[in-house]
Amino acid sequence: MRVLIALGGNAMTGPDGSATPQAQRDAIAGAMEHVAEVVAAGHDVILTHGNGPQVGNLLVKNELAAHVVPPVPLDWCGAQTQGTIGFTILDTLEAALARHGVRRRVAALVSRTLVDADDPGFQRPTKPIGRFLPREQAQVLVNHGETWEDRGDRGWRRVVASPEPVEVLETPTLLTLLEEGYVVVAAGGGGIPVVRVEDGSVHGVEAVIDKDLTAALLARAVGCDVLVIATDVDHAVVGYGTADERPLGVVSVAELEGCAASGEFASGSMGPKVEAALRFARAGGTSVITSLERITEAVSDPGAVGTTVSGTTAPGTRHTESPTAATESPRDGR
Amino acid sequence: MRVLIALGGNAMTGPDGSATPQAQRDAIAGAMEHVAEVVAAGHDVILTHGNGPQVGNLLVKNELAAHVVPPVPLDWCGAQTQGTIGFTILDTLEAALARHGVRRRVAALVSRTLVDADDPGFQRPTKPIGRFLPREQAQVLVNHGETWEDRGDRGWRRVVASPEPVEVLETPTLLTLLEEGYVVVAAGGGGIPVVRVEDGSVHGVEAVIDKDLTAALLARAVGCDVLVIATDVDHAVVGYGTADERPLGVVSVAELEGCAASGEFASGSMGPKVEAALRFARAGGTSVITSLERITEAVSDPGAVGTTVSGTTAPGTRHTESPTAATESPRDGR
Repeated sequence: MRVLIALGGNAMTGPDGSATPQAQRDAIAGAMEHVAEVVAAGHDVILTHGNGPQVGNLLVKNELAAHVVPPVPLDWCGAQTQGTIGFTILDTLEAALARHGVRRRVAALVSRTLVDADDPGFQRPTKPIGRFLPREQAQVLVNHGETWEDRGDRGWRRVVASPEPVEVLETPTLLTLLEEGYVVVAAGGGGIPVVRVEDGSVHGVEAVIDKDLTAALLARAVGCDVLVIATDVDHAVVGYGTADERPLGVVSVAELEGCAASGEFASGSMGPKVEAALRFARAGGTSVITSLERITEAVSDPGAVGTTVSGTTAPGTRHTESPTAATESPRDGR
Repeated sequence: MRVLIALGGNAMTGPDGSATPQAQRDAIAGAMEHVAEVVAAGHDVILTHGNGPQVGNLLVKNELAAHVVPPVPLDWCGAQTQGTIGFTILDTLEAALARHGVRRRVAALVSRTLVDADDPGFQRPTKPIGRFLPREQAQVLVNHGETWEDRGDRGWRRVVASPEPVEVLETPTLLTLLEEGYVVVAAGGGGIPVVRVEDGSVHGVEAVIDKDLTAALLARAVGCDVLVIATDVDHAVVGYGTADERPLGVVSVAELEGCAASGEFASGSMGPKVEAALRFARAGGTSVITSLERITEAVSDPGAVGTTVSGTTAPGTRHTESPTAATESPRDGR
């Protein structure tokens, strides 16, 4: 099968959220053990990854060094993290594949994601990024054109545009390498955001793109069977924090849409993951939201772990074989 | 023909050396006009690039933000610049190719260069990087294990290992894409330096690799006909600053070796370019050192511009057709 694995923040940073180079490398090395198992099982794998903490660090560096060296915009920060995370994945995934005796090459692509210059996100920035600052320091940056919001006791925080991904521009390159047997790392951080300008060329923009929404787009574009959204919980949960709290196992598109519509999922975390899972399922694929430790099972036995949602045309998944599996055998509690 | 173009600092920064994002983009866009001409002439092109000013900026950010966010090592800095420069080349080269009506795809690879852990460079760091600092500030960093040297009036400067490139690990990926018709950007900044460790895996190291030496290695590994080292002067020059100053046109390997041995070329600038040109020529290729503006001629008419040195087995070069061209028609003064 062809599988896209979208790695979340916990695959990129230490258990305490630490983003030192060593903590990042250790976390990535741990994640690559699981990815290597999926590759060893014979699947074609595309990897994408988040970059929130890493971009946060780069923004602090921008800020604190601005009197000496020019700050770089968000598209550049994203590009920087594709370099460091891509490089670290190359090293650690190659090592993990070697331990599994798998002869597959790995490539990491600098990759851009086209967004619409008229996306409403550019008019109403909503995505919080970087560190909290006191009002006075935030005001200086507001005067420089940035949008910051008062977040109460913690201080002010920058909000930026998070436009919809339209196209991963490196899709043909990714397919070329995939067809040659490569494991390909692409669209890290959702991809470097670019817009098309009048002469037909593209140009980077100050924005961040949700990496799971890009993953869903890319999984569809390259004809994946399964999209695995790897995060730090085993399932999406409904009734969170209530007496009725329950994990979601195998669900239908309609059921998951219903949960999302009733506001079950937090907008900054599980919300976009569920939306990404739904988009890929509606396109006929199987999406699984689960923890990093369960991605091998998520691929080898769809429906066995995590929150799994499939479109009607997805091949070889438990969900299509047994539409009632959701209630019969959710296996959520493991 | 298959051509590797190694872009120097002036293709990456503003005329005054400025490395703001806009200055970098403008410089790269200008350089890509020339690269697009080479591609439009029907050649297969691999691009590599320097990253000195960019790494310099990242080191300042490391230093000034170290009390808030963890500094990243030199291999990570190199990876970051592969992201930003690679991304900018993708955008601007695609635009330039479109203007030339050329349908070729462009890809930028995160790429690593293997070095020997026992390279003497690690024992005796010699490559100056980053900004000058007063003695007191340098001393703090020396106490943290860095090597800094007293450079007199300008202050102290950090020196790091600059080991010999042994292998560009992404060579197979590059070849795969090249054979599919791609223009490929690889080994930026000489490649992210890695060493092989006991278990056979590789690991990044604190070093910088000379980008021209890596270019010569890569040009040979992928079977290039021509290596163009693009810089800010039209030729290498002998007798610099003397009454006997003269530019070198078409020269033999022996002649250029002789000039190098007599110390004609500065160790930090023209020296490594000449050494890279010699290495590729000894392997049978044609190397040209010239200005960015002349790279199209350097490829279409080897020997017509720049300092050109060829091995005896190089195909289709003026030098092999006419070994005496150096004295007959150097055309240096254009």
